[in-house]
Order: sequence, then C-alpha cells, then structure tokens
Amino acid sequence: MIALHLIGIGTGNPDHLTGEAVGALNAADLILVPRKENAGDLADLRHAICAAVLARPVPIAEFDMPVRAGEGDYVQAVQDWHDAIATAWRAAIAAHLPGGGSVALLVWGDPSLYDSTLRIAARLPDISVRVVPGITSIQALTAAHAIPLNALAGAVTITTGRLLRRQGWPDGADTLVVMLDGGCAFETLDPVGLAIWWGAYLGMPQQALDHGPLAEAGPRIAARRAALRARHGWIMDVTLLRKESR
Amino acid sequence: MIALHLIGIGTGNPDHLTGEAVGALNAADLILVPRKENAGDLADLRHAICAAVLARPVPIAEFDMPVRAGEGDYVQAVQDWHDAIATAWRAAIAAHLPGGGSVALLVWGDPSLYDSTLRIAARLPDISVRVVPGITSIQALTAAHAIPLNALAGAVTITTGRLLRRQGWPDGADTLVVMLDGGCAFETLDPVGLAIWWGAYLGMPQQALDHGPLAEAGPRIAARRAALRARHGWIMDVTLLRKESR
Ligand SMILES: C[S@@+](CC[C@H](N)C(=O)[O-])C[C@H]1O[C@@H](n2cnc3c(N)ncnc32)[C@H](O)[C@@H]1O
Ligand SMILES: C[S@@+](CC[C@H](N)C(=O)[O-])C[C@H]1O[C@@H](n2cnc3c(N)ncnc32)[C@H](O)[C@@H]1O
Repeated sequence: MIALHLIGIGTGNPDHLTGEAVGALNAADLILVPRKENAGDLADLRHAICAAVLARPVPIAEFDMPVRAGEGDYVQAVQDWHDAIATAWRAAIAAHLPGGGSVALLVWGDPSLYDSTLRIAARLPDISVRVVPGITSIQALTAAHAIPLNALAGAVTITTGRLLRRQGWPDGADTLVVMLDGGCAFETLDPVGLAIWWGAYLGMPQQALDHGPLAEAGPRIAARRAALRARHGWIMDVTLLRKESR
Repeated sequence: MIALHLIGIGTGNPDHLTGEAVGALNAADLILVPRKENAGDLADLRHAICAAVLARPVPIAEFDMPVRAGEGDYVQAVQDWHDAIATAWRAAIAAHLPGGGSVALLVWGDPSLYDSTLRIAARLPDISVRVVPGITSIQALTAAHAIPLNALAGAVTITTGRLLRRQGWPDGADTLVVMLDGGCAFETLDPVGLAIWWGAYLGMPQQALDHGPLAEAGPRIAARRAALRARHGWIMDVTLLRKESR
C-alpha cells in the first residue's frame, strides 16, 4: 500500500508552506526529490525547505528526472514524458520503501496549477493520492504588488505564453494572467489600454517586480527579463495584464 | 504610522494558514475582526483561528460591518459600502490603537480573489498595506477532488455566477470556475459535453463534494445544495466546469 502526498510548497519561500504541508512532510515515510541535468530543478531549494520544516528525520531520496523530447507533437511528447516520470517514481519508491508507506512529493506552487504531478500520479492507479494545496506564483505576484486578481465583479483568465501568442487576447477577458512564457508574449499585444504587473523569482531572494502601462513598462520589463535571465542562467516569471478602463 | 496586514487564512481550516500568516498574526499589535448581523460573518471561526495560532496575547477588536445597500446600481452600492467599511476600520483602529502600529485583518481565502479588503484599504492612503497570500477556495476545491485546475496546456477562466448567467460560457474557455454564485448558474448551460466538480464548505467540518457529467451531477448537486443551505442556514460553494473532450 502506497499513499502519495502531493504537497504544494509555494514558490520558494519556506514561509509559504501551510501547517497542513508541514504536517504532511513530517508524517511521510519517504520524501522524493527530482534531480535534473540542468540548474532549473530547484532540488537544493527543496532540500532547504525540508531542512527548515522537518521536526524528525524523514528519509529523502533523489531520482533522476527523465528528459522531455524536444521535437514532434507537443502533447504527445508531454504524454511520453509523464509515462517516463511515473516509471521513475515507481522505481524510486520500490528501491527506498519496498514495504510501502506514505510518500511525499514537494510540488512547486500549488499541485493543481500547470503542474504535471497529478497527471503522472493518474498513471499509477494502485497508489492513492492526496493533495495539499500551496501558494501559487499568481498569489505570490498579486501579494507582492498588493493588487486584486480580479477587477471588481470581473472575470479572470489564466493562460500560457504559447496560447497567448497563438490566440491573442481572449474575447471578453478583462484580466489575463500569463504563465509558462518562454519569452515576453505580451509583446504580441496592442498595448493601448492595457496595464501590466510582472514578477520574477517570486518568493525568492532575487525577486524582481515591475508594473505600469504596458506601452511604457513592457519594453522595460523585456530588457530587464533578458538581463536577469543572463545573470542567473534561468528565470521564472508571471505576468498579469488588465484593461485599464476597469 | 499604521501598517495594515491583509492576511489570507484559507477557507476555514486553521491548517491552511502559512508560516508567513502565523508570523504576521503573532507580530500584530491589533487584530480586527468584522462582526455582521447575520450568521455569515464567520467571526467565531476567525476567533478560533487566532486562538489556534497565537503564541502571545494579541489584542483582538471586533467592529460592526456596515450593511450593503440592496437596491440600485450594483457597482455604486459596492463603492458606497467599501467607503463605509474603510470608515469603520479607521474608527476601530483609532479606538484600540491610538498610537498607531501594526494591524492585522484575517481575510478569507486569499486577499486577491473576489475580496474587497484591498479596494477598501486603497481608501486609506496614509496606511501602508502588506498582503500575505492564503489558500483560496479554488485550491481547496481542486485539492479535495485531487484534480488539476487546467486541462493539459489549457487556459482557465474564473468567473462569477452573475457573469455566467449574463454572458454564458466564455468563448474559447475549456475550464470555467464559478464563484460568488447565489444559486446554481450552471443550470443555465447546455450540459452536453461538460463535466462538473463541486464543493461546499470546503476546509470545514461540513465539507460536501460531488462531481460527474453535468447532465447527471447537476440536478443532484442543485438538490443537495438546497438541502444543505436549508440545514445550515447559509452556504458557500464553488464549481469547476470542464469540456469533457479535454
Ligand atoms: C510549471 S508551472 C508551475 C506553476 C506552479 N504550480 C504554481 O502554482 O505557481 C511554472 C510557471 O509558473 C510560474 N512561476 C512559478 N514559480 C514562479 C516564481 N517563483 N516566480 C515567478 N513565476 C513563477 C512561471 O510562469 C512558470 O513558467
Ligand atoms: C467573497 S468570495 C471570497 C473568496 C476568497 N477570497 C477565496 O480566496 O476563496 C466568496 C466566494 O468564495 C467561494 N468560497 C469561499 N470559501 C468557500 C468554502 N469554504 N467553500 C466553498 N466555496 C467557498 C464561494 O464561491 C463564495 O461565494
């Protein structure tokens, strides 16, 4: 019997963890930490979070993250990658917890938001899954700027850089949050009447924030983003765009 | 000098509080708790959360929440109500913390999501505002069902019952979250091809969950919602709808 706990840890600040997350980590028999080839795995940060919140010694096992195929159909490549990660989880659990028990995975932000762990867990039907919610990068963004997510009584659309480039501003949206953006997808929009709030490395020591009318702040943010990416070797950022009339 | 901390407390479960929220509550000079005429104020729950997390005695002051005008223009009525609440905050702070200091307000869920405290705080420009993010009812819903918020690589729209009734299913949306719904706005949709995940009193002892194809689960949820509302005298619920093809 294996119970898998997908534990949202927020976006880098150990203070983002909820009491429920701290409790679930301390109750685990094994904590799994993915390790990637490149610097973007944040494995060290996960170890630091464990060190900060564990009140008892819980075994921590690293496993090598499979690499996603870069070519061909995007959705198919993701499906194959998820299959490979599920296999890696099963192998790591069998190696470190052969008798079964409670396994914890530290999930960046909240496990429900643009994260694959739930879809990967669905490939292991004999394993029961419990989710512990965590602070998302969207909440870290709105908190850092002290702004509401929604306009008064208005709707909010959360989308990806890929979708924004392909589909443009969604009909009827007045607030748009853009995640998973490899570049600055906001540059493809007509900036007139739009305001931007931007944040990178939210919750981390290198946190960067900017905001303003898109026509003025957009180019400033694009330049700063490129400089930060060059300096740190990686970047994670999220953008909120709002029609200024609201 | 007054510093106002808007502290997201999650949706009723004290275990939803983050370390940052617990720290901010313990660091406050005064905690303000709104008290309404009716049962929907959840003031007792706020007191219970303070009792559970305060490691030192922080003064807690209740203030009477002004009542929103029920008639006339909706947006104007909300603006007037926010003015009145800002005045009530100022009076409570002047009475209980005449020398200034750090004031904490416990905000349901996350302060950025369909919550008026940030807009009210903007009416007090001499007071500095800091936001501590909290688990939203959307996250409590997806965690309880162990489902992703977004379809794979897909967008998500968050809307209100009012907007859904008025505008129907947003063009291009494949996942729709409905909040602030006084009834069952999903009943206005053609259920073909839609699935629903529903949760009420999330994070509380009386939590209720259901899900399924909208055509089957919708009527079941509507009946259960009416029964729960009658039994408890109030209800808070949130709904996620997804096109089944995804
Ligand atoms: C794979 S998704 C995971 C999102 C995560 N589950 C959450 O709840 O925020 C990664 C995307 O989240 C956003 N993101 C995550 N952490 C961030 C951070 N610390 N600062 C800014 N953006 C972040 C970026 O848009 C990034 O491309
Ligand atoms: C005024 S909004 C506040 C939302 C809150 N700031 C949040 O982050 O969830 C109130 C709406 O949130 C949802 N909600 C809040 N708490 C809930 C709970 N415990 N269970 C279900 N829905 C809840 C309902 O849709 C309700 O109409």
